[in-house]
Amino acid sequence: MSDLDPPSTAAPMQPGQMLARGVCRHLRGYGFACVEEFVPARGLRVDVMALGPKGEVWVIECKSGRADFTSDHKWQGYLDWCDRYFFAVDAGFPVEILPDEAGLILADGFGAEIIRHPEEGRLPASRRKALHLNVARTAATRLQSYRDPGVAGMFKDK
Amino acid sequence: MSDLDPPSTAAPMQPGQMLARGVCRHLRGYGFACVEEFVPARGLRVDVMALGPKGEVWVIECKSGRADFTSDHKWQGYLDWCDRYFFAVDAGFPVEILPDEAGLILADGFGAEIIRHPEEGRLPASRRKALHLNVARTAATRLQSYRDPGVAGMFKDK
Repeated sequence: MSDLDPPSTAAPMQPGQMLARGVCRHLRGYGFACVEEFVPARGLRVDVMALGPKGEVWVIECKSGRADFTSDHKWQGYLDWCDRYFFAVDAGFPVEILPDEAGLILADGFGAEIIRHPEEGRLPASRRKALHLNVARTAATRLQSYRDPGVAGMFKDK
Repeated sequence: MSDLDPPSTAAPMQPGQMLARGVCRHLRGYGFACVEEFVPARGLRVDVMALGPKGEVWVIECKSGRADFTSDHKWQGYLDWCDRYFFAVDAGFPVEILPDEAGLILADGFGAEIIRHPEEGRLPASRRKALHLNVARTAATRLQSYRDPGVAGMFKDK
């Protein structure tokens, strides 16, 4: 099994999920803890939600190609849910189509590099607090399902 | 492999870990998300840290037998880190030796039942906030190690 393969029981990873894995590896080196496919609010789903040591909240959307970006009309809606917002793309992506106000990360399945930081917004304290709790409960619940596979049949996964 | 066996790559579970698993299963039914072996502060390590839907913080210490309890001189130190504190024990445990002011949970590896709720303390807001962030980052980092085993060799686990 190569390093790029998912666990044998999982479905093959999509290109965007590969980018997310590389992003999460890289951000961990900065002391950021990441949760993939996180739902900050009903109808929103971010590829990577990253929490920094001081509670910083970063959102990273992974775009596997031009069409993946141009078909996404929601990205500005995520700006209200983070201090910094990034797009992560691979080396073949036409980065000139990405908005300058978003951050830019180059990634592959093994790692990533931050090319451009966006300006920092500041989350309202109440939203930051709610996001921290939401990430805590989401990550803990998913972690339980890995540690205790028997629990999966007992509860509907959130 | 029976339902009680840990994943094949893991070490056999200790009796206290079995109790913790049952506790976590039960609390999930209450909407609590649990992290096992959580470190709220240097020198402290709780068996189960549980976060409720409204941010409630419960700590559950799992005692596999009389000696496990009598050798523990630290439990009152955990009261400052939660709203409610419980002991979890199995059906053979001499529950009369446990302090009345702590909650009581009967557990085995499959599930648990709350026998007695303790009085509720109230965490200071700043500590609750710090705990939520700490749980979020701890659970997300551990989750990443399950989802991406390749990351384990790249970073020292926290």
